[in-house]
Amino acid sequence: MIRLVLGGRMPKIQIETVREAQARIAPYIRRTPFIPFDFLSLATGKELWLKCESLQRTGSFKIRGAANFILSQLAQAKKCGVVAASAGNHAQAVASMAKALGIRSTIVMPTITPPIKVQNTRRWGADVELVGDVYDDSFEHAMTLAKTKGFLFIHPFADPLVIAGQGTIGLELAESNDFSDIEAVAIGVGGGGLSTGIAAVLHELHPKVKIYGVVARNAPSAWKSFHKKSLVSEPVSFTLAEGVAVKRPNEQMLGYMQEYLDDMIALSEESIANAIAVLTEQGKLVVEGAGALPVAAIIEGLIPEKKVALILSGGNIDIPALSHVLQRGLVEQGRMVRLMISVSDRPGGLNAVTDVLASQRANIMQIFHQRSSIHTKMDEAEIEVDLETRGPDHTKEITAALTGRGFRVKCD
Amino acid sequence: MIRLVLGGRMPKIQIETVREAQARIAPYIRRTPFIPFDFLSLATGKELWLKCESLQRTGSFKIRGAANFILSQLAQAKKCGVVAASAGNHAQAVASMAKALGIRSTIVMPTITPPIKVQNTRRWGADVELVGDVYDDSFEHAMTLAKTKGFLFIHPFADPLVIAGQGTIGLELAESNDFSDIEAVAIGVGGGGLSTGIAAVLHELHPKVKIYGVVARNAPSAWKSFHKKSLVSEPVSFTLAEGVAVKRPNEQMLGYMQEYLDDMIALSEESIANAIAVLTEQGKLVVEGAGALPVAAIIEGLIPEKKVALILSGGNIDIPALSHVLQRGLVEQGRMVRLMISVSDRPGGLNAVTDVLASQRANIMQIFHQRSSIHTKMDEAEIEVDLETRGPDHTKEITAALTGRGFRVKCD
Repeated sequence: MIRLVLGGRMPKIQIETVREAQARIAPYIRRTPFIPFDFLSLATGKELWLKCESLQRTGSFKIRGAANFILSQLAQAKKCGVVAASAGNHAQAVASMAKALGIRSTIVMPTITPPIKVQNTRRWGADVELVGDVYDDSFEHAMTLAKTKGFLFIHPFADPLVIAGQGTIGLELAESNDFSDIEAVAIGVGGGGLSTGIAAVLHELHPKVKIYGVVARNAPSAWKSFHKKSLVSEPVSFTLAEGVAVKRPNEQMLGYMQEYLDDMIALSEESIANAIAVLTEQGKLVVEGAGALPVAAIIEGLIPEKKVALILSGGNIDIPALSHVLQRGLVEQGRMVRLMISVSDRPGGLNAVTDVLASQRANIMQIFHQRSSIHTKMDEAEIEVDLETRGPDHTKEITAALTGRGFRVKCD
Repeated sequence: MIRLVLGGRMPKIQIETVREAQARIAPYIRRTPFIPFDFLSLATGKELWLKCESLQRTGSFKIRGAANFILSQLAQAKKCGVVAASAGNHAQAVASMAKALGIRSTIVMPTITPPIKVQNTRRWGADVELVGDVYDDSFEHAMTLAKTKGFLFIHPFADPLVIAGQGTIGLELAESNDFSDIEAVAIGVGGGGLSTGIAAVLHELHPKVKIYGVVARNAPSAWKSFHKKSLVSEPVSFTLAEGVAVKRPNEQMLGYMQEYLDDMIALSEESIANAIAVLTEQGKLVVEGAGALPVAAIIEGLIPEKKVALILSGGNIDIPALSHVLQRGLVEQGRMVRLMISVSDRPGGLNAVTDVLASQRANIMQIFHQRSSIHTKMDEAEIEVDLETRGPDHTKEITAALTGRGFRVKCD
């Protein structure tokens, strides 16, 4: 269970506190690029702009909130040290700010956290404690450390100073000339600190701009709660957008979402994977699943406005996950295919096939030659080959060339 | 053979022409981000900055030169149309500028150009002609089209207007506050337009800044020519930096390189692959091989200065190539391993192995079970399994668990 740090009813998010945050954190954060996404604009007939928090220090927007929180209570933080629970972006953000300010930091991470994330957090000098099988247990342990050791606890989202820090993205957008006629902004929603922080600022400065929150369908609690206007718990399935996977929204954050977000959209894993691949191939940006949600919403045609700003919240995607997504994209585009080729089971059968593949300039990634498959006749062997091709037309040429040499070919 | 477009001795590159270019092309190009690379700075004890031309329109710096060339001769370009030969970044740059200005463009590409690059060029409305087995033949055909059809020919580098266009990156650097105490700049070198354009500007404005040119060792002609101070032809082997693979430098461009570059460095494919992987995983940027050369030079410790600007010239890497590089990186980091496991050749052997793998939370990517391998005893079968692990320590744990259950295990 996530405990509420904010007590009672949530106060309105004041733009003045966001402005104060902006001045406070300026030396420690990067004003991230806001750039047009030509490829997807051309493909959709829209005017799409990307706010690249993936290029923020520590690879996500989280450092804005962490910086504002720590700098607002600097004397206490220096005296007592800080503690946070996170397996991801909040961990790196807190550790890096603590290092920059010479503050002792303790980060509690679930025991199953990938070592690369533990390493990235230790790199900033944090004491990492691996406690708890799931995040909620790590969170409890961090709260206990705060109480018993006097560390200053930094909540990942449900804190006015943290929300004000994330809201500085809204100010940067509003200050950009390129933002002037933006009609809508799409933002991934996890705890809600990022989306409501930005939305509160834009409601004040650009009241006509529509704000869309985006979640993964495999972690739909915030989406369901938003539409039902009451708290709903939902189990979390596997999602590429693990950074926004929440079982049950924080009650007060849900209140903010209902006040500040115009609509909430939920997307499939296929959409999220596709958005990551499009950002990589066409946007030249490495973006994690949660960060790619707004782009996925555009590709699925779920945002009607023409000129839209998409918040790429972070770039901390695991390389194995990115690699899978890219390979899958190649399969879907027909640039990676599997052929089953039946050949006569005599010496030279495989050679005849590879001869055709070589002359067609098809790149073999993997090949199996099997004699007693259930699909083969007695005098035949089956060759299963994974190929990189130049695309569907090339695949057709390869298949035709094989058929022309008398082989039976099936495309898997 | 590449014909010289510039006749006789090359005139000095004048900073005024670069300033004129900057004003001329401003509405058509993006002032690209210049951002610190925290991860590699921390790892090397340097202060590294990235100039992200990978985020430039069309994914590379090439549009700067193309824009300056076309805008300088706009009336003729509009009347006659333009032509260029390129399988890569120059093609997209010319096609996109022509589209923006309502000019007819013809791009000659080698017949073996990957369809994705043909598509990307046609997307901008260019007439693409696939002519020539190698680039030089495409180049000849484009020159012929220029003569017979009156198209305005746009050279990819050996032209003062093109060089001045690329030089605008030097002005953007010089105008940035963050550049003020930069000690060195590293730039990939192909034809030489980018490196000499930037270098000429910085020689004038920041004469103390050292300029390093970087090439791939598998395409070493410019590097050898630079150090021998005379033209050397060298065959080109496979390189991830195909964007800068040149068999023989242009004589006059070599003159510029010798005038403007302080040193030239050549790098292995392993270094280039590693730099691409580091930029992806830690920099959150998708960069092509040629664009990653400066980062590779830093990782290899070949640039002694402390505060260094690295020009990421482009982001147009093929996704299959990127995917290979990332997978290879995982293997090198011990996050992807192949184990050979000998089990008794009785029902349940494989199940006993997968039981251990499941309890160790190792992710199976591929598995083979073979009974009559040359390595197996009569009563054994061999299981070859490719695993994703959390790293070398996790691999050791998995191996120990398998050995503990009585299996013989070899790590490949």
